[in-house]
Amino acid sequence: MTESSVFPDPVYRETVLEPLFEGVKANYAAGMAAINRAHLIMLAETGILPAKDASAIAHALHDIEAKADIRDLTYTGQYEDFFFQLEAELLKRLGDRGSALHMARSRNDIDHTLFRLALRERTHLMLGELHGLAEALISKATSEAETLIVAYTHGQPAQPTTFGHYLGAIIEVILRDAQRLDAAADTLECCPMGAAAITTSGFPIDRERMAELLGFEKPLLNSYGCIAAVDYITGLYSAIKLVFIHLGRLIQDLQFWSAFEVGQLNFPDSLVQISSIMPQKRNPVPIEHLRHLASTTAGRCDMIVGTMHNTPFTDMNDSEGEVQQAGYAAFQSGSRTLRLLTALVPACRINGERVSRSTDAACITITELSDTLVREEGLNPRQAHSVAATVAKAVIRDEKALAEAYDTFAATFTAATGRDTALDDTAFQAAVSAKEFVARRERPGGPGPLALRAAFDGYGGILSELRNRDRARVERHSKANERLAAAFSSLM
Amino acid sequence: MTESSVFPDPVYRETVLEPLFEGVKANYAAGMAAINRAHLIMLAETGILPAKDASAIAHALHDIEAKADIRDLTYTGQYEDFFFQLEAELLKRLGDRGSALHMARSRNDIDHTLFRLALRERTHLMLGELHGLAEALISKATSEAETLIVAYTHGQPAQPTTFGHYLGAIIEVILRDAQRLDAAADTLECCPMGAAAITTSGFPIDRERMAELLGFEKPLLNSYGCIAAVDYITGLYSAIKLVFIHLGRLIQDLQFWSAFEVGQLNFPDSLVQISSIMPQKRNPVPIEHLRHLASTTAGRCDMIVGTMHNTPFTDMNDSEGEVQQAGYAAFQSGSRTLRLLTALVPACRINGERVSRSTDAACITITELSDTLVREEGLNPRQAHSVAATVAKAVIRDEKALAEAYDTFAATFTAATGRDTALDDTAFQAAVSAKEFVARRERPGGPGPLALRAAFDGYGGILSELRNRDRARVERHSKANERLAAAFSSLM
Amino acid sequence: MTESSVFPDPVYRETVLEPLFEGVKANYAAGMAAINRAHLIMLAETGILPAKDASAIAHALHDIEAKADIRDLTYTGQYEDFFFQLEAELLKRLGDRGSALHMARSRNDIDHTLFRLALRERTHLMLGELHGLAEALISKATSEAETLIVAYTHGQPAQPTTFGHYLGAIIEVILRDAQRLDAAADTLECCPMGAAAITTSGFPIDRERMAELLGFEKPLLNSYGCIAAVDYITGLYSAIKLVFIHLGRLIQDLQFWSAFEVGQLNFPDSLVQISSIMPQKRNPVPIEHLRHLASTTAGRCDMIVGTMHNTPFTDMNDSEGEVQQAGYAAFQSGSRTLRLLTALVPACRINGERVSRSTDAACITITELSDTLVREEGLNPRQAHSVAATVAKAVIRDEKALAEAYDTFAATFTAATGRDTALDDTAFQAAVSAKEFVARRERPGGPGPLALRAAFDGYGGILSELRNRDRARVERHSKANERLAAAFSSLM
Amino acid sequence: MTESSVFPDPVYRETVLEPLFEGVKANYAAGMAAINRAHLIMLAETGILPAKDASAIAHALHDIEAKADIRDLTYTGQYEDFFFQLEAELLKRLGDRGSALHMARSRNDIDHTLFRLALRERTHLMLGELHGLAEALISKATSEAETLIVAYTHGQPAQPTTFGHYLGAIIEVILRDAQRLDAAADTLECCPMGAAAITTSGFPIDRERMAELLGFEKPLLNSYGCIAAVDYITGLYSAIKLVFIHLGRLIQDLQFWSAFEVGQLNFPDSLVQISSIMPQKRNPVPIEHLRHLASTTAGRCDMIVGTMHNTPFTDMNDSEGEVQQAGYAAFQSGSRTLRLLTALVPACRINGERVSRSTDAACITITELSDTLVREEGLNPRQAHSVAATVAKAVIRDEKALAEAYDTFAATFTAATGRDTALDDTAFQAAVSAKEFVARRERPGGPGPLALRAAFDGYGGILSELRNRDRARVERHSKANERLAAAFSSLM
Repeated sequence: MTESSVFPDPVYRETVLEPLFEGVKANYAAGMAAINRAHLIMLAETGILPAKDASAIAHALHDIEAKADIRDLTYTGQYEDFFFQLEAELLKRLGDRGSALHMARSRNDIDHTLFRLALRERTHLMLGELHGLAEALISKATSEAETLIVAYTHGQPAQPTTFGHYLGAIIEVILRDAQRLDAAADTLECCPMGAAAITTSGFPIDRERMAELLGFEKPLLNSYGCIAAVDYITGLYSAIKLVFIHLGRLIQDLQFWSAFEVGQLNFPDSLVQISSIMPQKRNPVPIEHLRHLASTTAGRCDMIVGTMHNTPFTDMNDSEGEVQQAGYAAFQSGSRTLRLLTALVPACRINGERVSRSTDAACITITELSDTLVREEGLNPRQAHSVAATVAKAVIRDEKALAEAYDTFAATFTAATGRDTALDDTAFQAAVSAKEFVARRERPGGPGPLALRAAFDGYGGILSELRNRDRARVERHSKANERLAAAFSSLM
Repeated sequence: MTESSVFPDPVYRETVLEPLFEGVKANYAAGMAAINRAHLIMLAETGILPAKDASAIAHALHDIEAKADIRDLTYTGQYEDFFFQLEAELLKRLGDRGSALHMARSRNDIDHTLFRLALRERTHLMLGELHGLAEALISKATSEAETLIVAYTHGQPAQPTTFGHYLGAIIEVILRDAQRLDAAADTLECCPMGAAAITTSGFPIDRERMAELLGFEKPLLNSYGCIAAVDYITGLYSAIKLVFIHLGRLIQDLQFWSAFEVGQLNFPDSLVQISSIMPQKRNPVPIEHLRHLASTTAGRCDMIVGTMHNTPFTDMNDSEGEVQQAGYAAFQSGSRTLRLLTALVPACRINGERVSRSTDAACITITELSDTLVREEGLNPRQAHSVAATVAKAVIRDEKALAEAYDTFAATFTAATGRDTALDDTAFQAAVSAKEFVARRERPGGPGPLALRAAFDGYGGILSELRNRDRARVERHSKANERLAAAFSSLM
Repeated sequence: MTESSVFPDPVYRETVLEPLFEGVKANYAAGMAAINRAHLIMLAETGILPAKDASAIAHALHDIEAKADIRDLTYTGQYEDFFFQLEAELLKRLGDRGSALHMARSRNDIDHTLFRLALRERTHLMLGELHGLAEALISKATSEAETLIVAYTHGQPAQPTTFGHYLGAIIEVILRDAQRLDAAADTLECCPMGAAAITTSGFPIDRERMAELLGFEKPLLNSYGCIAAVDYITGLYSAIKLVFIHLGRLIQDLQFWSAFEVGQLNFPDSLVQISSIMPQKRNPVPIEHLRHLASTTAGRCDMIVGTMHNTPFTDMNDSEGEVQQAGYAAFQSGSRTLRLLTALVPACRINGERVSRSTDAACITITELSDTLVREEGLNPRQAHSVAATVAKAVIRDEKALAEAYDTFAATFTAATGRDTALDDTAFQAAVSAKEFVARRERPGGPGPLALRAAFDGYGGILSELRNRDRARVERHSKANERLAAAFSSLM
Repeated sequence: MTESSVFPDPVYRETVLEPLFEGVKANYAAGMAAINRAHLIMLAETGILPAKDASAIAHALHDIEAKADIRDLTYTGQYEDFFFQLEAELLKRLGDRGSALHMARSRNDIDHTLFRLALRERTHLMLGELHGLAEALISKATSEAETLIVAYTHGQPAQPTTFGHYLGAIIEVILRDAQRLDAAADTLECCPMGAAAITTSGFPIDRERMAELLGFEKPLLNSYGCIAAVDYITGLYSAIKLVFIHLGRLIQDLQFWSAFEVGQLNFPDSLVQISSIMPQKRNPVPIEHLRHLASTTAGRCDMIVGTMHNTPFTDMNDSEGEVQQAGYAAFQSGSRTLRLLTALVPACRINGERVSRSTDAACITITELSDTLVREEGLNPRQAHSVAATVAKAVIRDEKALAEAYDTFAATFTAATGRDTALDDTAFQAAVSAKEFVARRERPGGPGPLALRAAFDGYGGILSELRNRDRARVERHSKANERLAAAFSSLM
């Protein structure tokens, strides 16, 4: 290989240029067309480009797009990349005059604008799926507001609550995740165009207009930052990662609850693989798949963020073409996770018989008996706890349900306090009933029916606001598209 | 080891309980005292606890805190942990009556409240340091607004700009990072107290009041989420990680710019290790240390987030005591990074002679000559580019500065266009001058002096707003402290 | 801050130099003494240093070590670091002659030799703990070779096996992990001394002798690699990480098996936290702690490896002092994990009653009935499967154990084949017995008693070999210590 | 969705089953055919299956493979997956008799065998590319053994060495990485077949024979481990990750060395993008692409290992189908990195003029002058250092090369020692010459020509051994293929 060797080396072509070319075609052709049009309009409007030149270029661009389906292009090596291939088409039609389209811009600002266009579209889809999941969960939670379940701490049965209450906890996390992702989506809405290579341009360009034509909220300010800052990428993938790390925790619960021995949760036949020889074995495989889909999504987000580690702050390939495209795999596996979960959670049902059995076996209402003795019998907590513990010990020993132990309770109470309990059997039943346990907890955030209803209303409000925010962005995008098309037409 | 074995096993004590005890003492003693006082006040105010019992407990708590320096306690194994040791002190003083303090609360809501108190304090410190860094950079950028530097893309000299403009790009990233961290700080400001074990309580507790007494903005709603959701942790550490991933990119530039051969950036003697035998070798070691400090900080954040991966959504140790404490190391190395960077950046100076030399050698103003020919001579971009390229080729061949090449330029222009250029030598000098290059770029976000000044003003405004937001939180905390102290006094 | 500023800047001192100094004192003092002695001996033996100079320096070194407890030194700022402080002591005693100790060496080769000495000691301890765990598991597996358990796939009961068989699977992973860690330990056994700053030395040093005196296997060859290659670090921490990622999977099983509803595994009281009010709740908290200890250990390993990412291959701080010390936290949490697990696994017991109940409820021996029909009745697998499935469906419907279903089986068989089964009730019992299920699986690697015994013998052999390998390294180290002491004495 | 819903739910089908089916077709069809054949042969040889049944199945398998191009199959949803679709084809041809092929095996052992077959093929390709890179580097190092370069520490010029010596350091790392990857490749060479679902089988299967027919070294022992242990995956991807983390450090050096201002390294035109307007700007873009390719490869490895975190040790989807396929992306980007680097390094050339300029400017031979004074003038190191430092200071001040400073040196020497130096100008020239600096460093591992030659010979030996090890595996595989084909033919 000598100095007279010609770019590109075949290995470079095969390992870098061809894959890049294919990726650009697949992901950025539409964005490139929009940027070309917007830039041309801006050049004409600012007078940088005379009207007749602008019109000629507009016709040529239109012709190129009409003639060639860009997705049919193959990498020939004649041009370094997709961008230059388009430029060559322009020059073929217009001669040197065609070069005017590239005034006052650069590959640098174009590239990061393309990346933002591609990410904002994908982020919008993911937000939509995440909002859809939140809605499905709110709806499920509402219909399961009074369905009793066993709540666990440290992996052990601890207290009764309702499925709706549990889902409320999950919904709150998802809504916060959606807010984080929404904030990250906002960071995509600043337009790098006009930064040109690094420092803007000596031409009197109009950055505000470019942002507007492309549907951005505003220009991204510092022009070096426009082409070098990567936090719109790292911030976005960090927010996505959190969604899937947190959903993974819900998935672990679903897995455990649907374990053969636990059985608190059932799935319909459509989501269960059944062994033909072990008929009672109902394997909820979708949950397993959800776990690795969530894990690989989170891992892909890490890959993207990690790729920026210890890179210089300057326009570098570490944040560009190929890395951008590698990141899209996170959107794909993430979407699969969200869609599957949105189908799965509404379809699941709590197995009341199992819940009831575990509630009795683990004696999980006993703390409410103790609290009742404090409130209604005026015992101090330590005394009350002692009476309750003695009762619990007895029912466990005798393998009874707590509800059957009024006599034991009454005797224990008398022995401990020297007086008879004022609680009759009905009051005792209430004190140890899971349903009553829940009903008594009407504090804000608790599982009591009114508390839950209020919470669900609140979630609905937050979700509405998130959807409005997303809708506002998308409407700006689509209005800009219309405006861009109109302005381009009038240019021609 | 038989069933009659006694908790705790010596290995468990040594590998888990002792380290936990030490950690709790070191990090949570003050928070525990505040929670005890607030809870007592709330119990009294709601009438859950009779006034005289509340007063007795208040005196006992005061006595315990006065008598024993909690940090002198050592783990004896008599009590399972720090919490039980405190409770034992209370019972010693008040008998069973002392148990009333623990009504309607649980280790679960107490723990996550402690963690939030500890994190909000640390996050406030980090935000302060980050704001301080932003301020130092804005100040530095302002004073270096017109200091020319070589700007790089793809690691190669590309265009002139100013140090102030470069720092502006960094400042924008830091401000966005500060906004992300600020949003994460806000998620800490919801209070879990009142969730009790999982489901709130049958007692008529006042969660709003608890939140207020402890300086939180409001209660965290869903009570299961209060003790199980971990996104206040994962969201916080994700935001911190981004700060240090992004600062790492600034650090890479500082490292490169101060390399012996590049020399665009100099540091004062106080930050440079000098070789006694290679006197020209000025090794800016702090930059190297900054890199690994930033990397280990980011790595520690990942460790915390990773620890939550594939854990169940339920109250689990994966988000508690020890893991919380492991995370504090990220705050420590992060703080060192921020403080060192805040000292270092203002102290550095641009080496104008080196900048000038590289500007000439890399011919980085040549694009402006081309643009000038479009604007002032009416050439199309392709023609202009061709003339400029020919000039560049000649000066490189002759090892001249571009500024010395007017004759070459004039001859090239004539040869290419068949007419004489209207640019005289002065206009040519302006077209190829780095200073003028910058001055002509007054577009929003560009390095032109007016554009920069406007940008810096904007940054100052954003920083002010961020500081106000942080101050508002801290004032709420300190006012709550006063209110808590007053209410506790009146209880006694 | 002006050019006349004096190194070190107070912020640099506080954020970097002091922490470094403390770390060096705590971790490297003994290694530094050994290197000084070995280097001095080598200089004398090769004649680079005259005997009387060597003797004088030896006396001075001895005096310094005798007089000052190095751990009492505090950072004064007078000397840049610990290394220079020692050198100053030497010069104080010997004048310029004392400078001869530093001939033909450098901070660079000394540092990486110190790091290897520190890592090899820690790695030896971790290997010892890992071998201890393997031994405890082999012993436990041997005594539980015939203890039936339910084996799971996809989280669902699938087949019977024995606890010993399950542990065998775990042991094989641990032994492979130990082999990986052992291979990483071997990479520590090459000595960088003699690389000097980068390129070895013009003095006729003896690198073999240095390696020998410090107990290394041999010199590390390429001298640039000696001070710049970091794979001894990254390879080591990658191997450690794998240990804890894999142990985490065992921990997940222990957690699930000891869940209240599953209950296949019990722990003694010494390892269980018992609720005073829910007496049947036996919370195996050590398992929970094991999980986050394993996770944070793995996370710390990642932090170290990640710190090297995108750093230049050259002697850089990213692999030195502070980063090395940050890594030691992984050894500490790793050691706690290993010790706790080594105490916990032998202490746990299988709850036979629960195993038996799940075995029946999940009908997990049914596949062996099917196989038996193929082998003994000559059915084709599909026929056999069909008969078995019908039987299973019936016993599940009737809530019977499979063993009680001979009549159902016989009738099903006849209906399916048109003939009577040759299996009598005894043969049927055998075909559906979990004990027999296991006994019939004497294939290599299976749970049959002979197969297991052979496997355990094999594991013992592998463990022995691993211990021998570790012992050989340690003996080389301790013999080298003796040799070093002797040579140093004779030098004096 | 009700209990009467039918598997699979359309969302599950779309998000899981179809992607899985496509992946299996693309990656495992050949492996599945081999396993089917081998298992059939083994069943026949052990007498588990009568000869005529075996022959019939063999014909059917052959027919299926001949008739249908497996890659044309599309997912119809009629069968759960690819495996069942094949089985259906068999039953269609043979009726229930066809079910005999699936005796004494399971999806579980088949799957992990398929994964190992797929990984061993990919690992072999990667090892080949890594060996090729090592060979290219050894060859390049040999031809550049005496090419002077500036060696850096802490990012600053430190000493002269040769390009060959530098590459030697890199080669040693690559060889150790190849050894780690080779060890990981060995772990793939154990065969899970015969584990069946978990516990082997009651049939007298021959696991040794299965291993042999499929080209494995031996069966993997513990049968639960066969289907549940994942360290063959995690160990492999950990080893791959290290390769790319370490290559990333070489890449950083290449990037820095080819920076415009440093210019120590040049690339031929075929690997450089040239700016048409800045003719001196030679942008070595392949290096930039290498960095992100290496980073994303390492990130993908982490994704796979991370997916196993906190999963149970049991047969779970987290290590199966989709996750396996996600990992193959690491092989693809890894291969591109290796191939590009293998083309790039041999093509690069050291720019001697730049090396010489930096050598002088940074005075990097001055330490050898100091050492020479110790050796030849008998000064103590401190004196020698002082004389050398004074000379260095003077040449820097006067902007001279060290070689021109004999007079200064002689005067300094006299002033310091009170006597004339015995070094004449020639000896002085030698003492400060970079070429001589290198030549004097003939210690093992040093850059001296003999030392280097010996080192290169050693590397060649290690590489040979690695290639032999890989060849032995591949030959076993291909011989097994032949044996398998022959045995299958004779079965028909």
